[in-house]
Amino acid sequence: MEKRTKEKGAGEIMESLKTKVLEQLALAKQASRKTGLLRTEEKNEALALIAEQLLADEANILAANEQDLARAEADGQPASYLDRLRLTPARIRDLVDSLEQLIRLEDPVGQLIDSWTRPNGLVMEQIRVPLGVIGMVYEARPNVTVDAAAIALKTGNSIVLRGSHSAVQSNLALTASIRSALSKSAVPADAVQYLPYKEHASVDLLCSANGLVDVIIPRGGAGLIQRVLQQSSVPVLETGVGNCHIFVDQSAHYDMAEAIVLNAKTSRPAVCNAAETLLLHREWPLDRQHALLARLLAAGVELRACEQTRALHSDLAEQLKTATEQDWDTEFSALVMAVRTVDSLNDALEHIQRHSTGHSEAIVSEDRASAERFLAAVDATTVYHNASTRFTDGGEFGFGAEIGISTQKLHARGPMGLPALTSYKYVVRGTGQIR
Amino acid sequence: MEKRTKEKGAGEIMESLKTKVLEQLALAKQASRKTGLLRTEEKNEALALIAEQLLADEANILAANEQDLARAEADGQPASYLDRLRLTPARIRDLVDSLEQLIRLEDPVGQLIDSWTRPNGLVMEQIRVPLGVIGMVYEARPNVTVDAAAIALKTGNSIVLRGSHSAVQSNLALTASIRSALSKSAVPADAVQYLPYKEHASVDLLCSANGLVDVIIPRGGAGLIQRVLQQSSVPVLETGVGNCHIFVDQSAHYDMAEAIVLNAKTSRPAVCNAAETLLLHREWPLDRQHALLARLLAAGVELRACEQTRALHSDLAEQLKTATEQDWDTEFSALVMAVRTVDSLNDALEHIQRHSTGHSEAIVSEDRASAERFLAAVDATTVYHNASTRFTDGGEFGFGAEIGISTQKLHARGPMGLPALTSYKYVVRGTGQIR
Repeated sequence: MEKRTKEKGAGEIMESLKTKVLEQLALAKQASRKTGLLRTEEKNEALALIAEQLLADEANILAANEQDLARAEADGQPASYLDRLRLTPARIRDLVDSLEQLIRLEDPVGQLIDSWTRPNGLVMEQIRVPLGVIGMVYEARPNVTVDAAAIALKTGNSIVLRGSHSAVQSNLALTASIRSALSKSAVPADAVQYLPYKEHASVDLLCSANGLVDVIIPRGGAGLIQRVLQQSSVPVLETGVGNCHIFVDQSAHYDMAEAIVLNAKTSRPAVCNAAETLLLHREWPLDRQHALLARLLAAGVELRACEQTRALHSDLAEQLKTATEQDWDTEFSALVMAVRTVDSLNDALEHIQRHSTGHSEAIVSEDRASAERFLAAVDATTVYHNASTRFTDGGEFGFGAEIGISTQKLHARGPMGLPALTSYKYVVRGTGQIR
Repeated sequence: MEKRTKEKGAGEIMESLKTKVLEQLALAKQASRKTGLLRTEEKNEALALIAEQLLADEANILAANEQDLARAEADGQPASYLDRLRLTPARIRDLVDSLEQLIRLEDPVGQLIDSWTRPNGLVMEQIRVPLGVIGMVYEARPNVTVDAAAIALKTGNSIVLRGSHSAVQSNLALTASIRSALSKSAVPADAVQYLPYKEHASVDLLCSANGLVDVIIPRGGAGLIQRVLQQSSVPVLETGVGNCHIFVDQSAHYDMAEAIVLNAKTSRPAVCNAAETLLLHREWPLDRQHALLARLLAAGVELRACEQTRALHSDLAEQLKTATEQDWDTEFSALVMAVRTVDSLNDALEHIQRHSTGHSEAIVSEDRASAERFLAAVDATTVYHNASTRFTDGGEFGFGAEIGISTQKLHARGPMGLPALTSYKYVVRGTGQIR
């Protein structure tokens, strides 16, 4: 066996990989035809069986995870990496909870979006249908395997998963458990496929399988997302970076501004809806500005300020680092914040226009006209008046489940709930109409 | 000047092209920020000014078109090509009529799609906004230049146009006329950009300008669409081929089936919603089958039939060519039709599943249960019961304007009206909420 592999040329290995991947994609496509027609109760029953099976297979899953952890540790991966990779009984319980929550969510498939009758008597209906086959390329966290598969199945889709190779044993154990549950349900087990191949070519094959795969969702770092975006001929749902701003207007309520900025920066600095830049209206009272900056510093936030801010608060100058041009474009994902003094709402809008990644942007202001101008002019998935940017999240929006936060404008924008995994079709009923 | 160009290396020319294209894209992006905030009346006024200006510039436009025609003729292009390229006073009048119709259509921008209040008091609104900058890559017909620009402006977008080089003089004259009209309106002239560069690299630059361009729409042959799909990292709205089927069920109404098949095949065979394959239920009365085939033949349709059909209608055998496997997958776009006898609805569904391009599919049947099964099971933008596939069209759907017919499932599917050129954003109003 070992010998045969060694004897194979690179071309032969590539051909064999291609055959295997395309076979799995064809099975997923085939299964999607059945899954897309199932009733909500049938899909919910399958989700309940998955929850049961994960608990039954817990020992197996944790043992597989141990193998991945041991390899990652031997490779010298940092503790934060190991933590993301680790499965525990509590984390499996969280997955089961998510499945139970998903069962209670409304099924978007089959929903009548619109209907009308044409003058010639044709009766038109626009009906929500599954996308078909979803390709998911993701990194590290094995819980994504279960969450993504469950959301795909709830919306009548098949899913082809390709996680990072460091989590391959965990992911294989999880998908085996899911498929074993499905084999007792109305959902075909083939609706969930895992690509266990280390070769990056397996991602390329997935991303170029137009006709077999309907959408690719990359979840992970900017490198992964950019690579998928560049390579994929299958449409991609992009979940991007968040360089979010908070503009404290001259009329901002003191305590509210302080609470919102603190919350948006410090409550969870590593996530994409955390704020990165604070824009201070020059005419917001200087003592309040001072108090706010002092509170941020006291909370352990490193502040990188423009020259005007440093001059206005010279007593803090030692604690205020000088911001570079690059800082305005950086998603720090840490307790670091850029600070800029602006002369007007217009200046704030111009700064945001130049540096925003279009994720989440907020204004704190007691002036209704300024707020409305900000909300209309800023081009982002979510714009806030007097609230923290941290609310850009499927759960906080009330969607119940979240596939990710789209920063593109096509198909879905902002937090994506179940409808983001659906399309529609037109059903037209006639009585012999011709054109 | 000539000399300098000759001295330039390929790299230098490429750099200069890149600079010029990126400059135009940046202008379009800048203009989109203003266009997206205009009131409906301001956009409609701009459209009316364009209509006026096109009529005023008619002599110029036709003279430019003459140059393109002369070059195409010298290149030995066929008459059909010259016809697509040709502008006439009547065709300019048609463009003006389309503009007037567009003015009367509802503006989707600003529409409140959904709104709700969260338990924490946040007031959520989902509001329709323009996409931003649309990149349009298209072939031959210069009328697309005006139609596409007008639809983009009505929906608050900027547009960057790149037509085929054979129509460059016509397209430049048309865009000059449009921009001259815009300069008298609230819409910035820079909202309409034309890329006059012959180099295919200008298309590549457009398709890789993530951040400046929000969507690429290719309009033209399969080759153009595939090239754009393969190359673009900007999301693409795919308008694809239509290999459409009509299934005549055993219970089909005789005259209705005949009328629908004749209409779907012969009324305009070159378009994507024309039928390509006829599936005949074996138990539909043989004399009716015979009559239908004879009528198709009498209408000049070349029939390529399966062996069973040829055996069942042996008296027609000389006129029925033998279908090859490839015929089931061919969009003939001509008076040619493949014919297959199937034993059941299941067989018809299986054939369609294997060979459909997911455009438009129809069943003719008096049996409601069969029809409903067909409508649910067939995965296509539009499925018909007792009507011709020819109705898959923005005008026939009542959309007023059509950007194209999407055969992908993301963002928009089937005939695309004005809302297909929009996205949405969430506007969240709070009273100091933090998380």
